Amino acid sequence: MSTTERPAARGTVGTTRVTVVENGEAVSRRDKLATEEPFEIRAAGPGQSPVSIAVTMRTPGADMELAAGFLFTEGLISSREEIDRIRYCGLEAGEEQDYNIVTVHLRRAFDPGLLQRNFYATSSCGVCGKASIDQVEVRCEPVSEGPLVERSVIEQLVGRLRTTQRVFDQTGGLHAAGLFQPDGTLVVSREDVGRHNAMDKLVGHEFLGGRVPAAGRIVVVSGRASFELVQKAAVAGIPVFCAVSAPSTLALDAARRLGLTLIGFLREDRFTIYSYPERINVQPPP
Amino acid sequence: MSTTERPAARGTVGTTRVTVVENGEAVSRRDKLATEEPFEIRAAGPGQSPVSIAVTMRTPGADMELAAGFLFTEGLISSREEIDRIRYCGLEAGEEQDYNIVTVHLRRAFDPGLLQRNFYATSSCGVCGKASIDQVEVRCEPVSEGPLVERSVIEQLVGRLRTTQRVFDQTGGLHAAGLFQPDGTLVVSREDVGRHNAMDKLVGHEFLGGRVPAAGRIVVVSGRASFELVQKAAVAGIPVFCAVSAPSTLALDAARRLGLTLIGFLREDRFTIYSYPERINVQPPP
Repeated sequence: MSTTERPAARGTVGTTRVTVVENGEAVSRRDKLATEEPFEIRAAGPGQSPVSIAVTMRTPGADMELAAGFLFTEGLISSREEIDRIRYCGLEAGEEQDYNIVTVHLRRAFDPGLLQRNFYATSSCGVCGKASIDQVEVRCEPVSEGPLVERSVIEQLVGRLRTTQRVFDQTGGLHAAGLFQPDGTLVVSREDVGRHNAMDKLVGHEFLGGRVPAAGRIVVVSGRASFELVQKAAVAGIPVFCAVSAPSTLALDAARRLGLTLIGFLREDRFTIYSYPERINVQPPP
Repeated sequence: MSTTERPAARGTVGTTRVTVVENGEAVSRRDKLATEEPFEIRAAGPGQSPVSIAVTMRTPGADMELAAGFLFTEGLISSREEIDRIRYCGLEAGEEQDYNIVTVHLRRAFDPGLLQRNFYATSSCGVCGKASIDQVEVRCEPVSEGPLVERSVIEQLVGRLRTTQRVFDQTGGLHAAGLFQPDGTLVVSREDVGRHNAMDKLVGHEFLGGRVPAAGRIVVVSGRASFELVQKAAVAGIPVFCAVSAPSTLALDAARRLGLTLIGFLREDRFTIYSYPERINVQPPP
């Protein structure tokens, strides 16, 4: 498997002149914004024409991880050995490369029908949360093992994720996802304008490195715990999922069915455990 | 045009038992969560079979507004007169209605090819932010008029939106979008686990009521200003867009091209104006 090198200077931050109105005074100054650009992911088997899989609005950077992580967490590929190479779209002479389309070339045939079957359940009136979880369960084993994590470690995770948020520091406008060891050591973190993209980049990094299932890991996301994010963590085999904000009903149902410890409202002095609390040691050390 | 009545008691909130860990103590108590359920939108012309347009994870409630608002802001319909009726999926005997699929029945033929053309630009390497804005510009006139809004009104909007967030109050886990008059009077607000759904419900409410373009209105969203949200506001003709958090580069590019005043980091004592500041009177009253 090979991936193209990313070009050196894709901008993750743009600048503009703004008017800041504060305490009744208006001041003009330069300000920084997080870059958002569309990104199209295509897939192709040997001899097949690339098929468009998805278009997402993302912050440029870690594009190969994003493409691989998306295909993996959505159930379209299951091991990195299936990938031959990942490439930005090739150019005709005179065109300007904008690095917003990648094709994932597989070593085996790609079945476009999988798309329809994985993303939709269109044949009846039966679309519901339970059916959505059923679909994920087909694609991954529920997580049964998991670390025992000290309360004091959980309480440090938001602060540690925050120190990795380089673009957020400049723009105040990015979501983040961080992967940690049970002792709180950072494994990898990713930022993006889209929550799901930050998670896909993080999982894609581990997937391309041959480190999934990510057993014994903790993932922390900057926003809410949605069904989509819990699903992606479950497919990656991550046993502990923490969110800075609230979970939804379906995120909790998925965490329960798929074996994940779900933590919400994570702060430095408090958090709420929604499922599998036995992985967290809430007792103070003796 | 007719829409079915919504069933009386769709749950927007679920309850569960949780473990709250605070200041080193673990307490078990009941807690509330925002409901998240998949929602499929279908469209059909006279005599046509319904075609699946999109599946989104949403909080139940205002489902007809969500379906209509989505089709309108994504450029698939342009006036409410095109809609004959909106209905939940019909049931076979013995099936349980889960109210997660609606079909928008149109008075004219529906062209499924529009979907591909509107959501993707797949033919070349040319997908980029500029092309995305070009697509929106084809579907709506740039906003040229607009109100003059007092600074003191802008500063009150976050507080006013907050008072409408009934489900957020219970769960801490929902996005909101609110539409206001230039004097700060609330027109309508909507909550959802998805930011784009809250916006689609709000726009759908105005669209079904025959009040688009929503000239002279102000919209406030609880999170970031993404391209997607600015696009939806532009299609609805809303001239002033305010976000509690940061805008992205592409959101700002879209606001500039489509004539919207873009405000970010909206607080009670400060905000930042990114485009068309002439619609905001920042001077204190004489």
